[in-house]
Amino acid sequence: MDALSELHPIFHPRAVALIGASSGDGKVGRMFMERFLEAGFERLYPVNPRERVILGVEAYPSVADIPEPIDLALVLAPPRAVRDAVAQCAASGVKGIAVITGSIGEGGEEEVREVVEIAREAGSRIIGPNCLGIYCPSSKLPYPMRPSMESGSVGVISQSGSFADLLTLMACENGVRFSKAVSCGNESDLNAVDFLAYLGEDPDTEVIVAYLEGIEDGRRFYRLAREISKSKPIVVWKCGATTAGSKAAASHTGALSGSREIWNAVFRGAGIISVESLEETLDCLYALRHQRLPKGRRIALATGPGGPAVGTVDTCIDLGLEVSPLSSETKQRLAKIIPASGTSVENPVDLSIAAIVVPRMYAEVIRVLAQDENVDMLLVIGTGGEEFANEVRDVVCEIHKPVAISLINPMASLLRDYEILMESGVPVYPDPRRAVISLAKLADYARFRER
Amino acid sequence: MDALSELHPIFHPRAVALIGASSGDGKVGRMFMERFLEAGFERLYPVNPRERVILGVEAYPSVADIPEPIDLALVLAPPRAVRDAVAQCAASGVKGIAVITGSIGEGGEEEVREVVEIAREAGSRIIGPNCLGIYCPSSKLPYPMRPSMESGSVGVISQSGSFADLLTLMACENGVRFSKAVSCGNESDLNAVDFLAYLGEDPDTEVIVAYLEGIEDGRRFYRLAREISKSKPIVVWKCGATTAGSKAAASHTGALSGSREIWNAVFRGAGIISVESLEETLDCLYALRHQRLPKGRRIALATGPGGPAVGTVDTCIDLGLEVSPLSSETKQRLAKIIPASGTSVENPVDLSIAAIVVPRMYAEVIRVLAQDENVDMLLVIGTGGEEFANEVRDVVCEIHKPVAISLINPMASLLRDYEILMESGVPVYPDPRRAVISLAKLADYARFRER
Repeated sequence: MDALSELHPIFHPRAVALIGASSGDGKVGRMFMERFLEAGFERLYPVNPRERVILGVEAYPSVADIPEPIDLALVLAPPRAVRDAVAQCAASGVKGIAVITGSIGEGGEEEVREVVEIAREAGSRIIGPNCLGIYCPSSKLPYPMRPSMESGSVGVISQSGSFADLLTLMACENGVRFSKAVSCGNESDLNAVDFLAYLGEDPDTEVIVAYLEGIEDGRRFYRLAREISKSKPIVVWKCGATTAGSKAAASHTGALSGSREIWNAVFRGAGIISVESLEETLDCLYALRHQRLPKGRRIALATGPGGPAVGTVDTCIDLGLEVSPLSSETKQRLAKIIPASGTSVENPVDLSIAAIVVPRMYAEVIRVLAQDENVDMLLVIGTGGEEFANEVRDVVCEIHKPVAISLINPMASLLRDYEILMESGVPVYPDPRRAVISLAKLADYARFRER
Repeated sequence: MDALSELHPIFHPRAVALIGASSGDGKVGRMFMERFLEAGFERLYPVNPRERVILGVEAYPSVADIPEPIDLALVLAPPRAVRDAVAQCAASGVKGIAVITGSIGEGGEEEVREVVEIAREAGSRIIGPNCLGIYCPSSKLPYPMRPSMESGSVGVISQSGSFADLLTLMACENGVRFSKAVSCGNESDLNAVDFLAYLGEDPDTEVIVAYLEGIEDGRRFYRLAREISKSKPIVVWKCGATTAGSKAAASHTGALSGSREIWNAVFRGAGIISVESLEETLDCLYALRHQRLPKGRRIALATGPGGPAVGTVDTCIDLGLEVSPLSSETKQRLAKIIPASGTSVENPVDLSIAAIVVPRMYAEVIRVLAQDENVDMLLVIGTGGEEFANEVRDVVCEIHKPVAISLINPMASLLRDYEILMESGVPVYPDPRRAVISLAKLADYARFRER
């Protein structure tokens, strides 16, 4: 069966069972109940042999008692009760069983194998154990930290539950929206590569983000990733790359990490965008939102503050970007916009203090730079002001080359600038170095796509 | 004359002349007037031949007309008027002349040399042109973006005015306080190395931060920096390291940049803490605030979210830190604090979801880890909550090893957490990778100090 038809019902369940749902204060089983109710998921069946009604919803002693077919069950029961829960789900024809519980029984390998076999023989698939389940706004499947329930086009695969939860929440607060996220946990059955295959085929997903500690079938991963990358960018944070990191990963999810050299080769060959932190994952996601890929590696900078721009040029060069000379037509046009004293119409274009006095100047400069054929992408460094955000947003949304904004300035008033820009999909960074790193990754990926 | 006795009066002037002060809207000469008045600087003498009173302060047609000796003059006059302004200052015995104007005359080398000679012969020193002057809270000397007028122990030398202004403002908003900042501009006379000598001797300065594009007398810089580093950490962002960056620097301040290899050797030999962005400069400054240096390179991590911690271990190893095994006593003590299921008392210590439910747990774990003799520094990764910030602040302020906190979570409520921690000098980072990078720099510097 292909990934799409097998996994689609699990991500888009008609009815969901919460095994181990509870009304007890501070219980994980209560938290999930609350999240599903907040999300407005209707055909929700709490399962608990000791409670008849949980938060106003009728509870059932077992999955077998539920009066309709269940596509997805979340298992929140204690480890010793997981085997029975899975067996009941399998017998009832549940399609996907997400084991949130940290382990199946005491986690002995043989018991895990047996439980997986029970599920597979009945045609059920297991996610986890030690996972966080599925977040899918279009299906009203919620996540613990409450990321937005509006749908978008970014799909997440994570071997860490907290990564999936934090990433979706933080990105949503900056205007990104997700098609779905799945936390794979210890991968007793379904694994990250299965989910990659699914998100590769899923028409709702246009960008894929993955947190990976280890992959068992590296060849399948490589083959799939290389194919999917041709149409959808894949951003991967590969953790556990060092020996100590790998030990930490083993104690975290039991994954085998593999050497960094091999992974780097896999990433290059498969066109994967590699990142090194949660922050960098987010930075990269912001740059990918509009899927405008640069045609080449030539970058134009426009800046107010001079010093930070000089250091940013270094970063551009270090990452293989070209700070290209501007056409003489561009320079003539810029000279009409920017005052002559203490500024520069060469790349990096220095608006100097004029930028603060006349924020509109930025928008005009961006428009001129975007029309220069020597420019593939733009970085704008400013210090903000509400007029700045509005003007810049309007022009950035008009043009067809990637633009990143760096707003250097900590003041609370700037939060509004960030909001205005991010909500329109304009990527904003508190430091230009981070903006350049994200643009360079975009250029690397664009080069892969053109091969 | 030594740096201290020559430059001290310039940074601590009894009276200041603002040449080119103005009451005209939007003029730089008005902005500086406003800043000095806001700062409460009393013996302020605006100089402007066409205005008698500026913002309520009596103005003088020329420096010669001012009835008392001037220690510091800020020159805001147009380029063509700078020569005369400097000559008048020199004739009146002004000790320091900060030329804010972008150039002296049209900036021709010969004219600049002549003007500097006029000043030097009279015993006056020039800062700039193209500088932003001096920020010194204890002298009530303000800066354009209004960083705090409370005094502290960080001194700044910057070949970029915007860097000095932005750095001081942003760091002040996170609780850092400065002894003084000086923007050197195009260094017609006094240069960054002169100011380094001064801040090295200045008893009010305990940490030095520098933004440098180029240094003429590299040997003197090296000798001085190596000596000063023995007692005061020096953080340097060296820009213009690439050819394109160097070109940008030349158009920015006319500095010669030198090759990156030479600079790296200078940094290593002189114990300089090298950073690569404004953000990293700030990150590093937060870690240096309490001047607790680690005794070695062994780091203990305590985390709530598991995934980001695994990747952070990789960063630790990459930067030469040891994620050291904990003593069996420590592990036993941790086992009494942390619940058994889904957690780990090995390094990285994983508090898992328990961390969210009982924030106090973090404080107890930090206290135990700090007492382990195998631990030189700590990194704590959490997702916040006000109780978290208060508890963690109290314990971090008690212990004598460096501790960095990473709060991963974007929500507005967290701003308060940041505030609580940063105001007590506890360094907080939105991403653990940045925390580790700062701690590793601290460890590198500590190693230099022990040589």
